[in-house]
Amino acid sequence: MSRVRIHNFGISLDGFGTGEDQTLEAPFGHAGGRLMSWFMATSTFQAMQGATGGTTGFDDALAASWGPDIAVEIMGRNKFGPQRGPWTDDEWRGWWGDEPPFHTPVIVLTHHARPPIEMAGGTTFHFLDASPEEALTAARELADGGDVRIGGGVATARQFLAAGLVDLAHLAVVPIVLGRGERLWDGLEGLEERYTFETIVAPSGVTHLLLQRRP
Amino acid sequence: MSRVRIHNFGISLDGFGTGEDQTLEAPFGHAGGRLMSWFMATSTFQAMQGATGGTTGFDDALAASWGPDIAVEIMGRNKFGPQRGPWTDDEWRGWWGDEPPFHTPVIVLTHHARPPIEMAGGTTFHFLDASPEEALTAARELADGGDVRIGGGVATARQFLAAGLVDLAHLAVVPIVLGRGERLWDGLEGLEERYTFETIVAPSGVTHLLLQRRP
Repeated sequence: MSRVRIHNFGISLDGFGTGEDQTLEAPFGHAGGRLMSWFMATSTFQAMQGATGGTTGFDDALAASWGPDIAVEIMGRNKFGPQRGPWTDDEWRGWWGDEPPFHTPVIVLTHHARPPIEMAGGTTFHFLDASPEEALTAARELADGGDVRIGGGVATARQFLAAGLVDLAHLAVVPIVLGRGERLWDGLEGLEERYTFETIVAPSGVTHLLLQRRP
Repeated sequence: MSRVRIHNFGISLDGFGTGEDQTLEAPFGHAGGRLMSWFMATSTFQAMQGATGGTTGFDDALAASWGPDIAVEIMGRNKFGPQRGPWTDDEWRGWWGDEPPFHTPVIVLTHHARPPIEMAGGTTFHFLDASPEEALTAARELADGGDVRIGGGVATARQFLAAGLVDLAHLAVVPIVLGRGERLWDGLEGLEERYTFETIVAPSGVTHLLLQRRP
């Protein structure tokens, strides 16, 4: 059974999944790397970069659940890049470098369709103007029975959670008070009625939440 | 050394310390008892009510840190009662019954001063129109070397944290998404620079945070 999953989604104690003032140089705005530094430190992430080393504790064990069985990713346009409105620079091919870490088809949600971009390493970006439900249908066709990851950003994760389309969500609460940015929980009042919540704390101080949709 | 402490302060995953629509019957508004049910279930709380029974696990062990060495409490007016503006009903003596669970002097912050009210069991309500700093000075005079508890509500806790007046804060994050109400974290951006954060999860699913002011 193909599942829809969110993994390694960092939020601050006050629930922000990204800071203010996103730019080309600062994808998370004033949050900088703070929401993802626990993940970047893991050997799972280091291996994704072709590097060795990194932490091998609880954070890493959880980080490793990111990849297996994922056949397609859906992401919001902001996770592809900071451009807004019609595409003006077709040469720039996203934040993820020549060989993005996805290695699967990626559906980028945007109101401005454009031809797919095939990258090295198996990642192809498809640009789709679609509702969450429509995007998921398209993703499942590409996934061929595999799982679909909702990759973010915040608005995209929130929309899929609000629509009840997510089966499993792994959130990582970082003990900082970010103060401003985009809140994951907005509009999700009563989510506990539709999802079970499990919680553990890693020695790093990161609190890992696992949400699973109630049967 | 007299310390300023917050204990058993329940917030939702999305950071709300109380819900919307506070009334005489619903001190936490639409949150109902959900932010404090873990605390109400403890044998510590049951004993405060003169009852026996209750949970005796980790939640209880932490709940028990509420009382010792506390010589004075400071609370916002909303924790005393739901009235706003000038006092119109002097007969009504707060939400806490004839023998409130404080058993110490309690400073109630209000713009509308009124004479103190002495209750059974050692609680006396003092009504003070004062800044956090002024209230703390008054509390320390009453405390005679004992500790001062900031009892809430949300705005009061936030103001004392923002002013850097709190030495230790024990927060209990309940795994619900409340959606609306009053947020504890608002205006506290970067609090982690001034406080250390420790986290544990109780088997109840409640995440306990302990904030301690950095030296």
